[in-house]
Amino acid sequence: MSILIKNISYLDIEKEKIIEHADIFIEASIIKKIGENLKVNADEILDGENKLLTPGFVNAHTHLGMSYFRNYADDLALMDWLQNEIWPVEAKLNAEDIYWSSMLSIIENIKSGVTTFCDMYYEMDRVGDAALESGIRGVLTRGMTDVDGKGEEKLQEFDALYNNYHNRSDGRIRVVPAPHAIYTCSTEFLKEISENAKKLYDNIIHIHLSETLTEVEDSKKEYGMTPIEYVNSLGLLDSQIIAAHCVHITDEEIELVKNKKFYPVYNPSSNLKLASGFTPVDKMLKNNIKLALGTDGDSSNNNQDFVEEMHIGGIVNKAVTMNEKAVPAIEILKMATINGAEALGFEKLGLIKEDYMADLTIFDLNSNSFTPRNNLISALVYSANSHDVESVICDGKFIMRDRELVNVDEEKVRQVVNKRWEDIKSR
Amino acid sequence: MSILIKNISYLDIEKEKIIEHADIFIEASIIKKIGENLKVNADEILDGENKLLTPGFVNAHTHLGMSYFRNYADDLALMDWLQNEIWPVEAKLNAEDIYWSSMLSIIENIKSGVTTFCDMYYEMDRVGDAALESGIRGVLTRGMTDVDGKGEEKLQEFDALYNNYHNRSDGRIRVVPAPHAIYTCSTEFLKEISENAKKLYDNIIHIHLSETLTEVEDSKKEYGMTPIEYVNSLGLLDSQIIAAHCVHITDEEIELVKNKKFYPVYNPSSNLKLASGFTPVDKMLKNNIKLALGTDGDSSNNNQDFVEEMHIGGIVNKAVTMNEKAVPAIEILKMATINGAEALGFEKLGLIKEDYMADLTIFDLNSNSFTPRNNLISALVYSANSHDVESVICDGKFIMRDRELVNVDEEKVRQVVNKRWEDIKSR
Repeated sequence: MSILIKNISYLDIEKEKIIEHADIFIEASIIKKIGENLKVNADEILDGENKLLTPGFVNAHTHLGMSYFRNYADDLALMDWLQNEIWPVEAKLNAEDIYWSSMLSIIENIKSGVTTFCDMYYEMDRVGDAALESGIRGVLTRGMTDVDGKGEEKLQEFDALYNNYHNRSDGRIRVVPAPHAIYTCSTEFLKEISENAKKLYDNIIHIHLSETLTEVEDSKKEYGMTPIEYVNSLGLLDSQIIAAHCVHITDEEIELVKNKKFYPVYNPSSNLKLASGFTPVDKMLKNNIKLALGTDGDSSNNNQDFVEEMHIGGIVNKAVTMNEKAVPAIEILKMATINGAEALGFEKLGLIKEDYMADLTIFDLNSNSFTPRNNLISALVYSANSHDVESVICDGKFIMRDRELVNVDEEKVRQVVNKRWEDIKSR
Repeated sequence: MSILIKNISYLDIEKEKIIEHADIFIEASIIKKIGENLKVNADEILDGENKLLTPGFVNAHTHLGMSYFRNYADDLALMDWLQNEIWPVEAKLNAEDIYWSSMLSIIENIKSGVTTFCDMYYEMDRVGDAALESGIRGVLTRGMTDVDGKGEEKLQEFDALYNNYHNRSDGRIRVVPAPHAIYTCSTEFLKEISENAKKLYDNIIHIHLSETLTEVEDSKKEYGMTPIEYVNSLGLLDSQIIAAHCVHITDEEIELVKNKKFYPVYNPSSNLKLASGFTPVDKMLKNNIKLALGTDGDSSNNNQDFVEEMHIGGIVNKAVTMNEKAVPAIEILKMATINGAEALGFEKLGLIKEDYMADLTIFDLNSNSFTPRNNLISALVYSANSHDVESVICDGKFIMRDRELVNVDEEKVRQVVNKRWEDIKSR
């Protein structure tokens, strides 16, 4: 299968500019050739006029299965919300429930231009199935806790997930261990996961870190260290870390992680809505820390609209720093693409570049958001909305065309999710 | 003309809840009857199942004509941006340019559920024409300055606008004077506008107030008072004030205005993006100040997506106050409807209630944002996007049906705006 996109404008993240009138030739799952007026034979030729091509977006932290909890228990404190609202209902979910809610979230992700997700939840094999069926690229990270005394079970479950799903579909699916957080995992459990990551898996760990002030205060009281210092003392930072949130990362912690493979994932909507605070994005960027961007789950966001996430992330930090030039649009786009890809451990992903994976998002420039056509890098972050995403290619194949999902019956997914949710509440 | 909407869920702002299975009967421009299983004859019957009805939204502060400047000069300080980027190009715009850019903004407003705008710009007669043609309700407020020595001209122009457009189309169009800001108007000019407002017009004034720290500092230096104290000393606060921004309103100013007809208009996207700061929304609400909500112009927002504006306004204040319960969704919806209507001086507008004006927005609940159907008040603010707006009724008439503008050729407007902008830049 090959696709030739003719005469399109595309976002060159490395050059930090829009390249016009380019032909992009995709063969199998790879961007084979980029140039002007390419003379190649292709199975499909797409007219790129009035369209804008970006790397497919990387949603580097989410909980796909939580779409049931969207608008369910808003305006509560994180711990109260987790312990009294979310966890009791979550305990009733079965694998099939999670398959369907994850599929709904995957639809929302694709429809806002996302081609790769990093999901932390459970029943992850069924999330893997939803990813395989929908055509999206995904990192499955089983959220592991041992506060319930069932740590060993989680480790075994993770190992099975890794053996059954890691590198499925030519590497489109990956599996990464995820200790949930320092407040849900014992010291021994964190150490064990860390050692396993190095010995048995791929030396990458996904974890929630420094999301709230409570977490930081508790960590200082219990361990005499801030959360990132604490996980460092256990050896976790010898692995590559996908560090969700880092809202309350300290200056000392920034020094500690700046030369490590430590990728904070910024989740602006969730951090704002849960009143977690303002992530020091500008300060981290100035320390050359590579941030990725995530939506977090529907329970705290309350959607999976990645384009809106770029917008919110793009504007909030200017007010936080009282500096209009802070965190410019191109930095948000880096977080949304190459940084996310790198954070999740993918090579040759996140750029529109020869030999890179053909994960691509096509925006329709014939839309109000892009009228008139001024700076398109600004437009992507500050004025676009997810409905400007016209089509999405993942791994060299269309997974959305003209706003229609190729492999998923969207209407059916909504119906099943509504029905299952009624059932879950009555269990 | 009459419309009967059968079996719909609607937002009752006063009761702060969603009423299900209601019939809404609209006759001419009025909500005539609300009840269950109404037995009435209607010219059109609409099935309301799987739809959610809200009052049409009120965008209480915008600059419709500025859509040319969307994504044009981002990441600059307000004064630098205004003086060096926006004003020089703005000076080249003619009345027809402004008609077309305003029409583009009106389209975006309607498509995100807005039925009433309050616009501050110039060549306002042509903005009025765009409002009349599109079917939207609008308050035309000529932005007046005298720093250019042409104050008298502006006053005459305003008077002509008032005489020609005020109360056009059965009051759908209103005209309100708008001294631009304290830094663009002399003391004498502000006084004159204030006196005219009381004597000649309707005792309402629209003005930018306390948008930036620079404005506040300059005011203190020049007048020995903060901006709101200063305009009060000139008599402006004896009129009803549509006070755009109030980002830096002080505690003393809150005391001063809390029992006056003073309506701050909160413009979250613009205030964040221009690094103006965080408006003390929670504090003003606690003082029973009625805030309205606005998008501001495309040059600083950079879109007119009112649903996104509700979302951003809804989540930011939780982080500002570090309180998850601050500024709950229903407060945002009040700002977006009844408060805006009241701020602009409309009576019987902004609620779904018998005898109120039939300005209504219909959301499609068969969308990802509303799946599953949990708290619909939360959904409107935290998960919905503007594409969930299916149809819009203003003054008893459909102005959008199934996402198609009834009175405007959207594609043509985009084409003309693109073409004119190329021409403007070359002038």
